Amino acid sequence: MNITLNGKALDIAVHPDDTLYDIITAKGLHINAPCGGCGRCGKCRVTVEPAGEPTPTEIRLLSREDIASGVRLACVTKPTEGMAVRFNSMNSALAQIATEGRSVHYAFSPRLKLLRAELPAPTLQDQAGDIERLARALGYEKLEASPAVLRKLPNTLRNGAWKVSAAVAGDRILGVNPAAVLGLAVDIGTTTLAGYLVDLETGKELAVASALNPQKAFGDDVISRADRARAGDLERLQHAVAAEIDTLALRLCKLAEKEKTDIYHAVFAGNTVMTHLFAGVSPEHIAESPFIPAFTGAVDVPARTLGLAVNPEAVATLLPCVAGYVGADIVAGMLAAGMREDAEPTLLIDIGTNGEIALAAGGRLHACSTAAGPAFEGAHISCGMGGVEGAVNWAVLDGRLHFGTIGNAKPAGICGSGLIDLVAGLLDCGAIDDTGRLDGDAAPGWLPVKDGKVVLDEETDIHLTGRDIREVQLAKGAIAAGVEVLAREAGVALSDIERVYLAGGFGSYMDKRSAARIGLIPPELMDRTAAIGNSSGAGAKAALLSGEAMAEAERLARAVQYVELSARPDFQDLFMDKMMF
Amino acid sequence: MNITLNGKALDIAVHPDDTLYDIITAKGLHINAPCGGCGRCGKCRVTVEPAGEPTPTEIRLLSREDIASGVRLACVTKPTEGMAVRFNSMNSALAQIATEGRSVHYAFSPRLKLLRAELPAPTLQDQAGDIERLARALGYEKLEASPAVLRKLPNTLRNGAWKVSAAVAGDRILGVNPAAVLGLAVDIGTTTLAGYLVDLETGKELAVASALNPQKAFGDDVISRADRARAGDLERLQHAVAAEIDTLALRLCKLAEKEKTDIYHAVFAGNTVMTHLFAGVSPEHIAESPFIPAFTGAVDVPARTLGLAVNPEAVATLLPCVAGYVGADIVAGMLAAGMREDAEPTLLIDIGTNGEIALAAGGRLHACSTAAGPAFEGAHISCGMGGVEGAVNWAVLDGRLHFGTIGNAKPAGICGSGLIDLVAGLLDCGAIDDTGRLDGDAAPGWLPVKDGKVVLDEETDIHLTGRDIREVQLAKGAIAAGVEVLAREAGVALSDIERVYLAGGFGSYMDKRSAARIGLIPPELMDRTAAIGNSSGAGAKAALLSGEAMAEAERLARAVQYVELSARPDFQDLFMDKMMF
Repeated sequence: MNITLNGKALDIAVHPDDTLYDIITAKGLHINAPCGGCGRCGKCRVTVEPAGEPTPTEIRLLSREDIASGVRLACVTKPTEGMAVRFNSMNSALAQIATEGRSVHYAFSPRLKLLRAELPAPTLQDQAGDIERLARALGYEKLEASPAVLRKLPNTLRNGAWKVSAAVAGDRILGVNPAAVLGLAVDIGTTTLAGYLVDLETGKELAVASALNPQKAFGDDVISRADRARAGDLERLQHAVAAEIDTLALRLCKLAEKEKTDIYHAVFAGNTVMTHLFAGVSPEHIAESPFIPAFTGAVDVPARTLGLAVNPEAVATLLPCVAGYVGADIVAGMLAAGMREDAEPTLLIDIGTNGEIALAAGGRLHACSTAAGPAFEGAHISCGMGGVEGAVNWAVLDGRLHFGTIGNAKPAGICGSGLIDLVAGLLDCGAIDDTGRLDGDAAPGWLPVKDGKVVLDEETDIHLTGRDIREVQLAKGAIAAGVEVLAREAGVALSDIERVYLAGGFGSYMDKRSAARIGLIPPELMDRTAAIGNSSGAGAKAALLSGEAMAEAERLARAVQYVELSARPDFQDLFMDKMMF
Repeated sequence: MNITLNGKALDIAVHPDDTLYDIITAKGLHINAPCGGCGRCGKCRVTVEPAGEPTPTEIRLLSREDIASGVRLACVTKPTEGMAVRFNSMNSALAQIATEGRSVHYAFSPRLKLLRAELPAPTLQDQAGDIERLARALGYEKLEASPAVLRKLPNTLRNGAWKVSAAVAGDRILGVNPAAVLGLAVDIGTTTLAGYLVDLETGKELAVASALNPQKAFGDDVISRADRARAGDLERLQHAVAAEIDTLALRLCKLAEKEKTDIYHAVFAGNTVMTHLFAGVSPEHIAESPFIPAFTGAVDVPARTLGLAVNPEAVATLLPCVAGYVGADIVAGMLAAGMREDAEPTLLIDIGTNGEIALAAGGRLHACSTAAGPAFEGAHISCGMGGVEGAVNWAVLDGRLHFGTIGNAKPAGICGSGLIDLVAGLLDCGAIDDTGRLDGDAAPGWLPVKDGKVVLDEETDIHLTGRDIREVQLAKGAIAAGVEVLAREAGVALSDIERVYLAGGFGSYMDKRSAARIGLIPPELMDRTAAIGNSSGAGAKAALLSGEAMAEAERLARAVQYVELSARPDFQDLFMDKMMF
């Protein structure tokens, strides 16, 4: 079938079930669709020519004017021969993906080590087998190896005159005379992937790169993806993310001028649903009460069985999770933040696609999760979008409405950091009151309020509505209530907390003054608050580089007491209370 | 190309390098060829029409009369269009393969267990992950599983209302709600394979079956096969034996009316070269001084990576070896015989394709190997052959020469048990003296001695030569000298040994009186000697059924001190001495 996408003519094979959304995402293009193309959010707007009859979904989600002018939703529109489709393609190259992350120091002692030895040549008096001889020279009682490694060992030893190096993990040899022993750490975010390539001999970081999580085509949030997994798309979800991680590994190796087959260990952090999907295990029961994952413990698996074309002997370690909604990303974050029962009282807030909170205080560790994140990634916000090109990512209201966009592009929507700047500014200038009501009459004259909306840009109609502000209140109320519940569980007051770490990209890009102003972080702790960037990636890297950190991650995952907010009678009251400004 | 094999017309694809030997073995037919078709033994005689010019090999190994009458060697003869080939096809269906083996008792407690549990259903107050919940119910701190098993677990638990059974090995779940948990034990002999199917829930043996080792097509002895592995045939050798073991597993399952995918654990015993070849690891360095294997320790490996289509999660365990020429078959035999440093002094003699000896005495364990076996399997004996149809397998000389053949067939050659009966009889009737010289003049008149040969059957010209008797002397001298060396190492006299076990098929089929008469076993210990059959298979089965036995096998393999006879200055003298009758 011939169609044009943004002016580009294509001749494509089309399945009868395919919608424009399927075609656009299959082409690797990005269209804003927080609901993942399931006809819920109404954001995947396209202008088509010719436009057919609108579907009930479109009639519900689009205005009459839009429909009359040929606007349709990509997720419900079927392509027709010769159709011309225009849409706002998001330039993922400019996506803001946090890769930098801080971690406390752990001793460099990776589980995968490069060891060197010179062996005494065998004699009739010393007939030990080759691997037993190598084990003895390396000081091991016994070393194991796969048949593939055993196959190479004898001639490698003899050709090298009994001098050899070995990649050893635990009591297992994964390679002999490797060109290099590299490690890969990956933070599998719901939206973004961040990868780190390290040299496991020196501990040096060789390269960093990021990518979008291609599972986005199956839904923006973990629930959508869990639903898709249940509906039969589990394998596709697994392949999508595994293939992208494999490509990420390739890019990292190209950057470092290394070979992918030099990667012997890969460590992954991600939330529980991401961990399940990457392992090819359906997270469907996480999506329904009582929210049970198939596994929370760390999983070691041959990397190739996950679809990663790294060294055939390489091990992939999925870091442990705490519960269905407190995943390995939070465990890795706690690891990076150095949170321990016996360390200074520390709060970790990670607002990604979900909002997870962990607290080390009162000699204990607690964590909870709130459905707070999506608003800050654009879901449920009328002009909301993720942190990609064109997103309003900051705003200041000081007698005029200033704002900027990512890439200095024409405004395309509002992302999380812009959103909280706007709400904080509206509070400061009195346009919204303590209950969150947007009051055009109370707003200063310079504020462009029109039809109950704050209009940022007339031309593109980027605006903020009273309902958007309610969404922000719901999100920040949930986070603040969660923090309060954890403090109660730990038996400490908020003021006892000495450090607050904001994890993740949103935590890095947002203005913490705005966050404190709207109550997203405890205002009294603002001065003790610091963004630590991609602490999930930093923690994964720490676990890759330090057996001690790896063990600590496992200990943390078991030690953390998960607090199920939906089972707490006091949560609802706190939530209502914290929604106020 | 069209040829006929024993009257059967075939149209086959022929590679320019193919010899008749390749074609015959590729058709799954068996032709006597102890050297494995490399032009050394001169036994793979075929009669061809038309017969071309003989090769130098044929001129050397065949008589002029044979050559004139169209006899050629299959291993050097190329097929030509329309060629008619006749040869003595060995009927492997009647092969004598020892599968019965005795073992001392080990507590039934297999490493692979079937465990059952009823789990409390999860609640908001008890949100443990599915595998963590199962681990808790089964009393494990942590259980691991592959992504494939994790994938099935959640719905298996829920569909079964939280009642479940699990196949667990160590701290790993290999299957949930398995139809059955079966174990496979295999003795991988150089010549034969013996397989045992057991129920790991009850410990019951379900089926026993045997097969010829198809690697025979690559050579009869371990050295020939090690050479072929070095020459590039390693993969073919691995595939050949793995495919046959897979078929053996299938036959066992058909016998037991079970599915191959119910096999969760497979344990293998074999000599060190067989173990290497099955693992796909070249044994080439075992074939040259100082005889170093790539590995001797036990190897656990996913069964599917060896080419076994059993349960995808099944583990294959290769039992540990002691040294290049004392393999897992001997370790398994010692296990079956209950040999320990602290048990009664016990000698194990296993005469298969090699002759291995183990001694538990003087508070220690010793073992050695002698190149004694092949004579008893037909190598270097003019009319020698393995224990298949038509082999003379017993003889009595009591004023007449009585003998019988396997399957009561027309005599085709002489196998090991027939050979020692003949030599013992010839000694008794004075036809050979203490030095082993066959003396036609000293022989009684009823003995059919002709041209320095004892002729068993005029028609087929099955006979025994003076040189054959020398071969028997070399073999029995090596075994007897080996026994003596081990006794010296242990600091005990032969008379201190309380039990002598004869392992393997030859040990079962031979007449121990004949063996003692010729000095193959210590005559003074004849009354303490018992055949224990396929103790390698019995030991593998014991290790499969008992974690205690498995651990003991590993302990034994490490505890046994290997005695390299070629490095012993006293061995040559003892050997010369023991060659005498």
